[in-house]
Amino acid sequence: MIKNIKFDEQGLVPAIIQDVNSGQVLMLAYMNEDALSQTMASGFTCFYSRSRTALWSKGETSGHVQKVREILYDCDADTLLIKVEQTGAACHTGHYSCFYRNIEGEEVEPARFNLEQIYDAP
Amino acid sequence: MIKNIKFDEQGLVPAIIQDVNSGQVLMLAYMNEDALSQTMASGFTCFYSRSRTALWSKGETSGHVQKVREILYDCDADTLLIKVEQTGAACHTGHYSCFYRNIEGEEVEPARFNLEQIYDAP
Repeated sequence: MIKNIKFDEQGLVPAIIQDVNSGQVLMLAYMNEDALSQTMASGFTCFYSRSRTALWSKGETSGHVQKVREILYDCDADTLLIKVEQTGAACHTGHYSCFYRNIEGEEVEPARFNLEQIYDAP
Repeated sequence: MIKNIKFDEQGLVPAIIQDVNSGQVLMLAYMNEDALSQTMASGFTCFYSRSRTALWSKGETSGHVQKVREILYDCDADTLLIKVEQTGAACHTGHYSCFYRNIEGEEVEPARFNLEQIYDAP
C-alpha cells in the first residue's frame, strides 16, 4: 500500500527497476504518489520526470514498456525496487540497461537498438 | 573516473548495491565525492550518511562489508550501480537485502541474522 512509503521533501521516492528474469538492473527513476498509484493501477511503470515536472509513462513514445511483476520497498521505506518484464530496451540510448558504462567510462554492453528504431525518425 | 559522475546539488549520488553473484539488489545508499573516492581506493563500499552527515564505512560495526567488484554509472551519470561480494547481510535488520517487503507490507524473505548477532549485545 502506498501509505507504507516515505516520500521525500519533494514528494519523490527513487525506484530501482530490475529485469525480473535476468536480474539485470535497468535504471533508476523517481516516482511521486501519483506515479506510484498509476503504476499499481495500470501494471506498467509510470515515473515522475524531474526535468519535465510531469508524469512520464515509460515507453509511451518508444513502445518500450515495463510490465510490473513485483514492487518491494526497503527497510527505511524510502526506496522502491520494481521487478519488471522489459519490452525492447530500458535506456533512451538504445542500451538494454542504462548502466552500460563502467566508472572508467568504458562501454561494457553494446546498444541493442539505434535511436531511429526507438523514436520515429523525422 | 570520478569526474564522469554528476553529483546533485547536495553533492550526492545514489548508489544501487547489487550482489555480483546472485544479481539480488541489496540496498540503495548515497555517496559524496569523498565516499566514492574511498570506495575506489579501499575496494570496499563507503557511503555518506545523510542522517549522521558523515562518511560511513559499510560493515565497520557489523563486519558485514561489501567488497567492490564493479562500478557502473547510468546514461545521465547521476546514479551508480555497484556490484559487490556481500559478507553477512546488507541490511541492519539482519535481512540479506534491505528489500525484504513487498508493497503490501508482507515480508518476502526472512532475516538471516538477529540483531545481537550483528551488533554487540550490551
